[in-house]
Amino acid sequence: MKKPNAISKATIDRLPLYFRTLRLLQDEGRDIISSDELGRRLGITPEQIRKDLASFGQFGKKGVGYYVNELKRNIGGILGLDNHWNIAIVGIGHLGVALANYQNFVTLGFNLVALFDQDPNVIGRTVNHVKVEDVRRLKAIVKERNIQIGIIAVPAAFAQGVADLLVDAGVKGIWNFAPIKMKVPETMHIVNEDLSIGLSTLSYHITRM
Amino acid sequence: MKKPNAISKATIDRLPLYFRTLRLLQDEGRDIISSDELGRRLGITPEQIRKDLASFGQFGKKGVGYYVNELKRNIGGILGLDNHWNIAIVGIGHLGVALANYQNFVTLGFNLVALFDQDPNVIGRTVNHVKVEDVRRLKAIVKERNIQIGIIAVPAAFAQGVADLLVDAGVKGIWNFAPIKMKVPETMHIVNEDLSIGLSTLSYHITRM
Repeated sequence: MKKPNAISKATIDRLPLYFRTLRLLQDEGRDIISSDELGRRLGITPEQIRKDLASFGQFGKKGVGYYVNELKRNIGGILGLDNHWNIAIVGIGHLGVALANYQNFVTLGFNLVALFDQDPNVIGRTVNHVKVEDVRRLKAIVKERNIQIGIIAVPAAFAQGVADLLVDAGVKGIWNFAPIKMKVPETMHIVNEDLSIGLSTLSYHITRM
Repeated sequence: MKKPNAISKATIDRLPLYFRTLRLLQDEGRDIISSDELGRRLGITPEQIRKDLASFGQFGKKGVGYYVNELKRNIGGILGLDNHWNIAIVGIGHLGVALANYQNFVTLGFNLVALFDQDPNVIGRTVNHVKVEDVRRLKAIVKERNIQIGIIAVPAAFAQGVADLLVDAGVKGIWNFAPIKMKVPETMHIVNEDLSIGLSTLSYHITRM
C-alpha cells in the first residue's frame, strides 16, 4: 500500500462512495463487479476508478473485475472503519435524534456511546438506547468512554462553543452540521456537512432538463 | 458560457462548494479572493479552481482575483438557484422536521411549500409555518403549489413508494435521504444523500493522525 500522503483529496472523497456502492452490491448478492459497471453506478469513468484504486494497491483481476467482498473490506480498512470509532452527538434536537437513529452508522462500524444536551428537559431521556447527558459532563465522559469523534448538531450560535469543548476534551475529529466555519486547532480534523450541497447539485441538473 | 454538456461531473460537484465558500466570504465582508486562498479554504489546488471556473466563462481578473459577489451570483446562476424552486418534504419525523427548519435552504433561495406524512398524529401539525398534509394528497398539492423538488425523509422501507408517488406527481427532481438505491425513470434526477460519507471521510483522516 502506498503512503496515504500520495493520495489526492478528490480520491479520498470518492472512497466512501465506492464503499457505499460495494455495500449495496453485497446486499444484492453480487460477487464480482467490473470497473465499467461500478463507473455507471457512480457516474465516474472506469479509468478514474481504476486509477483511484490502483493508488492504494492491486485490487481486482484483469478481464474479470473486482471481488466485491474483498474490495469492500480493503476500502473499509483504508477508511479506518475497522477501528470501530466511538462517537458522541452534541445537541439532541430533531437533527441529533435523527442522527442517533441513523442505522448506517452501525452498519459502518461506528459505536454511538454518548449523547449530550444542555436542556434540562432533554437531559436524562433515552434515544436509541443511549441516555442524554448534561453537556457540562462532556469532558469527563469523553475520557471515560474513550470517544474519538464528536458530532455537532446544535444551532449555529452554539456550535463554536461546542467545538471548543470537544477540542478541550481531546476528541480526534469533529463532524459539524452547523452552517458556520469553525475555528479549531490545525491538528484537529473537522468535516463540515452542508446539506445545501445536495440540493444545489439537484438544482443544477433540473435547470438543464 | 459553454454548453453544460462539456462540464465534468466532478466540476459540477465542486460548484456548490465554491458557492458555499463565496457565501461565507460575503458574510465576512470580503470583496476579492484569489484562487490561491480559495484553494486553501477548500483543499483544492488553485489550478483546479481556475480550470473549473474557466469551463463556464471568464471570471476574475489576472493578478487581482475573483470578485466575491460577482462570482457568487454567476455560480448561483449556473446552479440554477435563481429559479427559486418550490420544495416539499415527505416524512415529517425527526429528520423531516430538522430539514424543514434548515435555514440554509432559505438562504439559497429554495421555498419550502409543502410537508407530507401518513401518520394521522402528524398530519395537521405546523413546522416552520408549513402545515403537514396527508401524503394521499401529494399529487394534487404538487400540481397546485407547483412543486419541482421532492425530498424523501421516510424510513427505507417506505422510500420507494414515496419515490413512485413523486414521479407520478411530476416533480423534476428527488433528494433522497433513505439509505437505499431507488428505481426511478432515467429522466428523473435523483440525488442520494448519504450521511455516512462525511463520517467515513473523517474516519480516514483520524486513522492517519
